Amino acid sequence: MLIARVIGEVVATQHHSSHDGQKTLIVQPLNLDGTDRGDAVVAMDAVDAGIGDRVLLVTEGFSAMTAVGRPNSPIDMAVIGVIDRIDML
Amino acid sequence: MLIARVIGEVVATQHHSSHDGQKTLIVQPLNLDGTDRGDAVVAMDAVDAGIGDRVLLVTEGFSAMTAVGRPNSPIDMAVIGVIDRIDML
Amino acid sequence: MLIARVIGEVVATQHHSSHDGQKTLIVQPLNLDGTDRGDAVVAMDAVDAGIGDRVLLVTEGFSAMTAVGRPNSPIDMAVIGVIDRIDML
Amino acid sequence: MLIARVIGEVVATQHHSSHDGQKTLIVQPLNLDGTDRGDAVVAMDAVDAGIGDRVLLVTEGFSAMTAVGRPNSPIDMAVIGVIDRIDML
Amino acid sequence: MLIARVIGEVVATQHHSSHDGQKTLIVQPLNLDGTDRGDAVVAMDAVDAGIGDRVLLVTEGFSAMTAVGRPNSPIDMAVIGVIDRIDML
Repeated sequence: MLIARVIGEVVATQHHSSHDGQKTLIVQPLNLDGTDRGDAVVAMDAVDAGIGDRVLLVTEGFSAMTAVGRPNSPIDMAVIGVIDRIDML
Repeated sequence: MLIARVIGEVVATQHHSSHDGQKTLIVQPLNLDGTDRGDAVVAMDAVDAGIGDRVLLVTEGFSAMTAVGRPNSPIDMAVIGVIDRIDML
Repeated sequence: MLIARVIGEVVATQHHSSHDGQKTLIVQPLNLDGTDRGDAVVAMDAVDAGIGDRVLLVTEGFSAMTAVGRPNSPIDMAVIGVIDRIDML
Repeated sequence: MLIARVIGEVVATQHHSSHDGQKTLIVQPLNLDGTDRGDAVVAMDAVDAGIGDRVLLVTEGFSAMTAVGRPNSPIDMAVIGVIDRIDML
Repeated sequence: MLIARVIGEVVATQHHSSHDGQKTLIVQPLNLDGTDRGDAVVAMDAVDAGIGDRVLLVTEGFSAMTAVGRPNSPIDMAVIGVIDRIDML
C-alpha cells in the first residue's frame, strides 16, 4: 500500500457498469515527508474519502476489487483507509 | 487506473482466440496536465472508445479480463471508461 | 520478495473492515548492503514483526492476502518473515 | 500489453513440469517507433511465434497462464499474437 | 520471466508457515549480456537450484505460488528453471 492524498475526482458518463455509483478519485501518492511520490493515479473509493484526505491506497487489482465489494470489477486501485496518524521509529 | 488517450489500433491476424472481435487499442498514458506519461501501451477496449478519446485505463490482468467480460482471457490492460470531466481540488 | 526494515506504523480509524485488529506497518525496502532501496511502503503484518526488525516483504496482492489469512482483503503487501541471517555466495 | 520482437529462445532442461513442450522465448519490448523499450524478457509462446516476429506480449501472470491453456502454471508473460499492422491516429 | 543468478540464501526462523522446508534464495536478475539488471530480489525455489546457477525467475504472485505447489502461500517470486543455453537471433 501507499500513502496518498485525494486531489480530485473523475467524471466518466460512458463507463463499465461496475463503476455505477462509485466515486472515482484522483490521488497523489506521497513520500513519508509528505512530498509527491511520482504522479497521480486514479482509484475507486471504498471508505468515502474526501478531497484533501490523506489515505491508504492499494495498488493491486484483486485487492482493489475486494475493497469495494465487487469481486469481478475492472478496478486496479482503491482507497481503503483514511489515515489519522503515522508513528515512526 | 491511469488516464490515457487512444492513439491507434493493432491488427494481428494470428492471435489468441480470446481476442476475436475485440478492438486492440494503442493508448498513451497521460499526466493530469495532459502531457505524455511514459510510453504508449496496448489495451483491449471494453467501452467502444474511439481514437482521440481520453479514457480510463486499468493496468492489471484480472481487472482487465473482467472489463471485457472474458474472465479467462490473456488480457492485462483494458479501456473501461471515456472521461467527460476531471474535477480537481 | 524484498528485504525491508520496519520503520513505523500507520493508524487509520476510518478503514476497510478487513483491517480490524491488523498492524499496518511502514517498511523501508533495503538493498543487500543495507542501504535504502526506493521509498518506504505500507504493509500488513503477518508474523508480529516489530519496529526495527529486518523482514521479508511480499509485494503482490493475492500473496499478501494469503499471508494474513484473509483471502478477500484489500491488502497488496505483507510482512511474512523476520530475517535471522543472509548467506551470500 | 506491449509490442515486442522475438529475439531468442531459452533452453532449460531442469524446469517446472508445466513448461514441458512449451517454447520459452526471449522477447525485446519495443516503442511505437520500433526502438528498444527497456530490456528483453522471457515469455512463453501461445501462438507459435517465430524468431524475428513482431508480437503482442501480456505481462501479467493470470493472463499469461490462460494464454497457454495452463491455468495453474508458473508463467508470468506470454506471447499472444503476431502483429500484422498498427494503425495510428 | 527474467533470467537471474542465484547468489545467496535467506534464513528466517520466525516466518509464515507456508515457508516451512522451502529454500528462500537471493537472486540477481541479469541482462542478456550477463550484467546485473537492477537489484537482487528474494524468491522461493521450485527446482532445487543452487548458488551460482543461472535460472528462470517468475515475478508474479499466482505464478510463483503455483510453482512451488502451494497455491495459497505468500510467495511472489519463484525460481522455476535452471538455464542450460540461450539461443539468440
